[in-house]
Amino acid sequence: MTDSPVLALAKDFISRRSVTPEDAGCQEVMINRLKKLGFDIEVMVFEDTTNLWARKGYEAPLFAFAGHTDVVPPGSEKEWHTPPFEPTVIDDHLHGRGAADMKGSLACMIVAVERFIEQNPNHKGSIAFLITSDEEGPFINGTTKVVDTLIERNERIDMCIVGEPSSTHTAGDVVKNGRRGSLTGDLSVKGIQGHVAYPHLAQNPVHQAMPALSELASTKWDDGNQYFPPTSFQIPNLHAGTGASNVIPGEFNIQFNFRFSTALTAESIQRRVHSILDAHGLDYSLNWTLNGQPFLTDTGELLDAVVKAVSDINHKAPELLTTGGTSDGRFIAQMGTQVVELGPVNATIHKVNECVSIPDLEKLTDMYQNVLNNLLA
Amino acid sequence: MTDSPVLALAKDFISRRSVTPEDAGCQEVMINRLKKLGFDIEVMVFEDTTNLWARKGYEAPLFAFAGHTDVVPPGSEKEWHTPPFEPTVIDDHLHGRGAADMKGSLACMIVAVERFIEQNPNHKGSIAFLITSDEEGPFINGTTKVVDTLIERNERIDMCIVGEPSSTHTAGDVVKNGRRGSLTGDLSVKGIQGHVAYPHLAQNPVHQAMPALSELASTKWDDGNQYFPPTSFQIPNLHAGTGASNVIPGEFNIQFNFRFSTALTAESIQRRVHSILDAHGLDYSLNWTLNGQPFLTDTGELLDAVVKAVSDINHKAPELLTTGGTSDGRFIAQMGTQVVELGPVNATIHKVNECVSIPDLEKLTDMYQNVLNNLLA
Repeated sequence: MTDSPVLALAKDFISRRSVTPEDAGCQEVMINRLKKLGFDIEVMVFEDTTNLWARKGYEAPLFAFAGHTDVVPPGSEKEWHTPPFEPTVIDDHLHGRGAADMKGSLACMIVAVERFIEQNPNHKGSIAFLITSDEEGPFINGTTKVVDTLIERNERIDMCIVGEPSSTHTAGDVVKNGRRGSLTGDLSVKGIQGHVAYPHLAQNPVHQAMPALSELASTKWDDGNQYFPPTSFQIPNLHAGTGASNVIPGEFNIQFNFRFSTALTAESIQRRVHSILDAHGLDYSLNWTLNGQPFLTDTGELLDAVVKAVSDINHKAPELLTTGGTSDGRFIAQMGTQVVELGPVNATIHKVNECVSIPDLEKLTDMYQNVLNNLLA
Repeated sequence: MTDSPVLALAKDFISRRSVTPEDAGCQEVMINRLKKLGFDIEVMVFEDTTNLWARKGYEAPLFAFAGHTDVVPPGSEKEWHTPPFEPTVIDDHLHGRGAADMKGSLACMIVAVERFIEQNPNHKGSIAFLITSDEEGPFINGTTKVVDTLIERNERIDMCIVGEPSSTHTAGDVVKNGRRGSLTGDLSVKGIQGHVAYPHLAQNPVHQAMPALSELASTKWDDGNQYFPPTSFQIPNLHAGTGASNVIPGEFNIQFNFRFSTALTAESIQRRVHSILDAHGLDYSLNWTLNGQPFLTDTGELLDAVVKAVSDINHKAPELLTTGGTSDGRFIAQMGTQVVELGPVNATIHKVNECVSIPDLEKLTDMYQNVLNNLLA
C-alpha cells in the first residue's frame, strides 16, 4: 500500500536528523512544495538558525501556519524500540523523533494548503508559513527574530495556527487559545556568616527569608478566569549553606517562577513581590527574567473557524485551554495576531518512542483544510 | 637569656608536627617529666590515636588535667609570618601552631605540677593527666575512649581542668564552667516532582515545609539560665531543586543544629521537633546526630578553687561562661566529674600566626598551681 501524501511527507521530515537548531533540509522540502503553489519564499538565517517565511498573496486577511522543523535530542537511542530518525509505522502509529512535536503537523499543513489551493485557486486573503529550526533550543534566533523582522516592515499576521501538539487523547480534543506567561525571579538574600555556636554574631538569611517565602507561596495572585487557571508561584530551586553543620550561611539563593494569566502583568507581579520582600525587611537582590508574555485569543474569527473546523470532523467541540508550557505563539501574539494552537496528541513528546496516530494526522489535515475553507474560501 | 621552664617546654611541644591525629612524641616528653614525679604511666592506643593516662596517688579526691597534643593543620604555610612548627618569640608572644590550642596549656600543667609536688610532696588526693591526640579530629578514639575505659574499671575523676583556650583578653578573664550540647537533624521532606506549568500534578516540598521551618526558627526553646544562653536553632544547610527552572522538586533537604543547655535534653528537643513537623502534616524522614551532651559545673569545690586561683593572680574574678563550641569536657563530665575549662586567650586559635602571650603562660602556670594548692595542699 502506498503511503498517503501526509504520511509520506511526515516520514520524509522524520528521516532528517534535525536536532535543534539543525533544520537538516526539512525547510527545503517545504520550499519545493510551496513554490509549486505560488508561494514567495524568504529564508531568514539568524546565526545558527534557519527560518522560513513563505507567503502567497498580499490581500488581507493574512492567515499563517507556524511551526518548527527542529526536534529535541533523542536521548539514549538504545532505549528506543525503533531508531528515532527512521520513521516506522507500528499499529497505525508513526514512530520517530518529532512525529508528534511537530513534523507530523508540518506535513498536515503542507498537504492541507495544497488541497485548499487546488480547490480554491482564487481564495480570499493570503496564506503564509512561519517556520523555524529553533523552537526547542534557546528560542533566540527563531520565531522571535522573524516576528521582529515582520513588525519592522509592517507585515502583520492577522490569524495564526501553531501546530504544537495541543491534544490529549485524539486530534482536536483540545485547542490552546492562549498561554500563560512565565516570569522567573532569582533572589539572593544576604545575611551574615558565622559560627553556629555564636548566633548573636551572625544573621541567618534562611531564617530571615522563610516568613517572606511562606507569604509568597501562600499568596493568592489572582482567581484565574474563563480561560486561565489561577496564577501559580513555585520555588523550583533553593540553596544555602557551606556543607558544614556548624556554619551559619551568609547567603540564601532562591529561584521562583510564576505562570501568570493575562489578568496580570509581569510588572504588577514584580511590584507585589518586591513589596512583600521589603515588608519583611530583607536585604536582598532580585533578578527577573521574563520567559514569555501571556496571550489569549478570545472569541473571534479565528477561534470560531477553528472550533467549527474541529467540530465538523470530531462531531464534538474542542476544549479551549491555556494550560501547559510556553510556545512560539507568545512571540506571534505580540503582533496583535489571533493565535490558536492545534496539533496532535502530546502524550509522547520529548520522550523515547515518540509517535503520532496516523488517522489523527489525516484528521488534522482535514481540520487545517477546514480552517482555510472557513476563513479564506 | 635562658627560656623559663614553661616557655622551653611549650617550644619543645610546638616544634613537633603533631597534626591531628599525630602526637609526634609530645606525650613521650610529658611521660619523661611525669615519671620523675612518681606518676604511673598508661599509654592507651586506639586505632590511629595515642592517649596518655598518668596518675600519681590513689587517694580521693582525684584531680585531673585534661588536654590534647594534636593541632589543626597549619593551612598554607606561606601565609604564616614564621614557620608554624618553628616556635618563635616575637614581642612577648610565642608563635606557632598549637601555641594557644593547646600546647601552651600542656606546658603550664606540667610545670605547675612539678612545682606543686616539689612544695607538697605529701599532698592530699591524687593527680592525673588525661591527654589525647584526637581532639581536633573526629574525636572517636580519644578522650571518649579513655573515659569509657576508666568508667569500665570504676576509676572516676572527681575534678578536672581542661586546658582549652577559654580566655578572651588575658589568661583567666573567662572560665568555662559548662558547654552547651549540640544536636543535628537531617530532615528530608518528600513532595511530588513535576512540571512548573502543571502544579496541580505535583507537590512542592519547599512550599509544604516552609511554614514548619518558620515555626522551628521562631520557637523559643527555653529562656537559658544563669550560665546558659537560650537554646538556639539554626539552619546551616538546605537544598532543593534540579537546577532547572521549570521543574518542581520532589525532595527538600534541610539540616538544622541545636545548641542547647542543661535545661533541655536531646530527647525533649527531638519530641518537640517531631510534633511541629507532624502538626504541619509533612511527609518526612529525619536523622538525628547527638554531637555532644551539655554539661554544667555549678558552684562547688572545683569551681571555688578555680575562681580563687584566678582571682589571686588577676585581682579580678573570672567570668563564668558556657558559650562557644564543644570540647572534650563533655566526655569527661559523663563520669559525674566537675569540669572547668581554663586556658589562654583564644583569639588566634585555628588561624595562621597562632600565638600565645608568654606572660599569660607564666600566669596560667601560677593559676594551675594555685588550684592544686587550693584543692590538694
